[in-house]
Amino acid sequence: MNPQHGFSAAEAESFYELVASRRDCRHFKRGAPVEAAQLQRILQAGYQSPSVGLMQPWRLLRIADAGLREALAACVEAERQATAAALGPRSDEFLHLKVEGIKDCAEVLALVLAPDDGTVFGRRTLAAEMALTSVGCMVQNLWLAARVENLGLGWVSMFEPAEVGTLLRLPVGAQALGLLCIGPVDEFYPAPMLTLEGWRTPRPLDQMMYTDYWPEGPENTSHGN
Amino acid sequence: MNPQHGFSAAEAESFYELVASRRDCRHFKRGAPVEAAQLQRILQAGYQSPSVGLMQPWRLLRIADAGLREALAACVEAERQATAAALGPRSDEFLHLKVEGIKDCAEVLALVLAPDDGTVFGRRTLAAEMALTSVGCMVQNLWLAARVENLGLGWVSMFEPAEVGTLLRLPVGAQALGLLCIGPVDEFYPAPMLTLEGWRTPRPLDQMMYTDYWPEGPENTSHGN
Repeated sequence: MNPQHGFSAAEAESFYELVASRRDCRHFKRGAPVEAAQLQRILQAGYQSPSVGLMQPWRLLRIADAGLREALAACVEAERQATAAALGPRSDEFLHLKVEGIKDCAEVLALVLAPDDGTVFGRRTLAAEMALTSVGCMVQNLWLAARVENLGLGWVSMFEPAEVGTLLRLPVGAQALGLLCIGPVDEFYPAPMLTLEGWRTPRPLDQMMYTDYWPEGPENTSHGN
Repeated sequence: MNPQHGFSAAEAESFYELVASRRDCRHFKRGAPVEAAQLQRILQAGYQSPSVGLMQPWRLLRIADAGLREALAACVEAERQATAAALGPRSDEFLHLKVEGIKDCAEVLALVLAPDDGTVFGRRTLAAEMALTSVGCMVQNLWLAARVENLGLGWVSMFEPAEVGTLLRLPVGAQALGLLCIGPVDEFYPAPMLTLEGWRTPRPLDQMMYTDYWPEGPENTSHGN
């Protein structure tokens, strides 16, 4: 690695293609494995993510036990039903969406927020926020690395964290934040699946950028659950 | 963009070089601008990040007013002193670190968590956590995009969020999470600056990966604030 590497226009173009073609995947090619070397490269990319104060607040549990994977999938299914109930009028529409691929994907990594280690640097006033955003940075590196390996990754966050915590034997202060599903896919969705399925239309970028101050009055919202 | 693009080994290698050479930058080349087209590409990369339930919980305020930038820098300086006081025995050591480059960088973008829009999909049980991790995913795309444009980015989170919120005229429910400094740099640190300066040694990857269950007993900690 050359820390001063000057990236070329072609390298930038390839990166932007990567960013644009990365998807939250729920459809996996059943039985197709991830090579150990691929998984290691993906994990190394996650490991090289930044964290506030170098706190590295995340841990990953690779789920190898088939029974444990089944039990986690059952947690997700229970929460899928609870989510449907909470969605009221859009319940049926929601239940027709495929929201996870835990049983079909090659690898499941449980994403865990580690117990707070008391890091002060950069988070005296924003302790929880900076731990969680640091976890997000790490996952985005995993996501892009999976895509550059031509693998799909889906972040499943539909579960009761206390139940998953019990299954994973998490200590006090640790919290399950996701079940990351990684594996070969038949295809990458041409756009985010929730957009393709008509669930929700994204807000355009120019409605997310302001100059200097937050604008007066309510934001133009296009909320879709 | 071809959603099915199969990335080559060379493209993967370039991406891993990008991941490895991205840094949290605090030293910027004063007076050197970011081209408008570069900034637009970086923002587009952030915009293409995932968010739970497509909630897109972030907003960015581009700081154009020089007086506003000065006022934000003053907030950071006040919090730097408060952090030093909170660090007790490491206070002097901390005060010798350069922790931000707000006054020198080409562009400052204030990162804001938008007021919660009530999205249920994927966050019925983890509402705050999924909004914040989604913000982290977005910033990581910005960070990598800046690096592929051969620009530095630094995430400054040393401030009292209520004070910054007042300066930016944020509405109730919105929260300032960072001041993102972007611009040309003279060099990229060969390793994270906090490691180079002896502030903190990172935990190795193999102590962040477990199989199936969290291990029994206390984790081996090497806390360094």
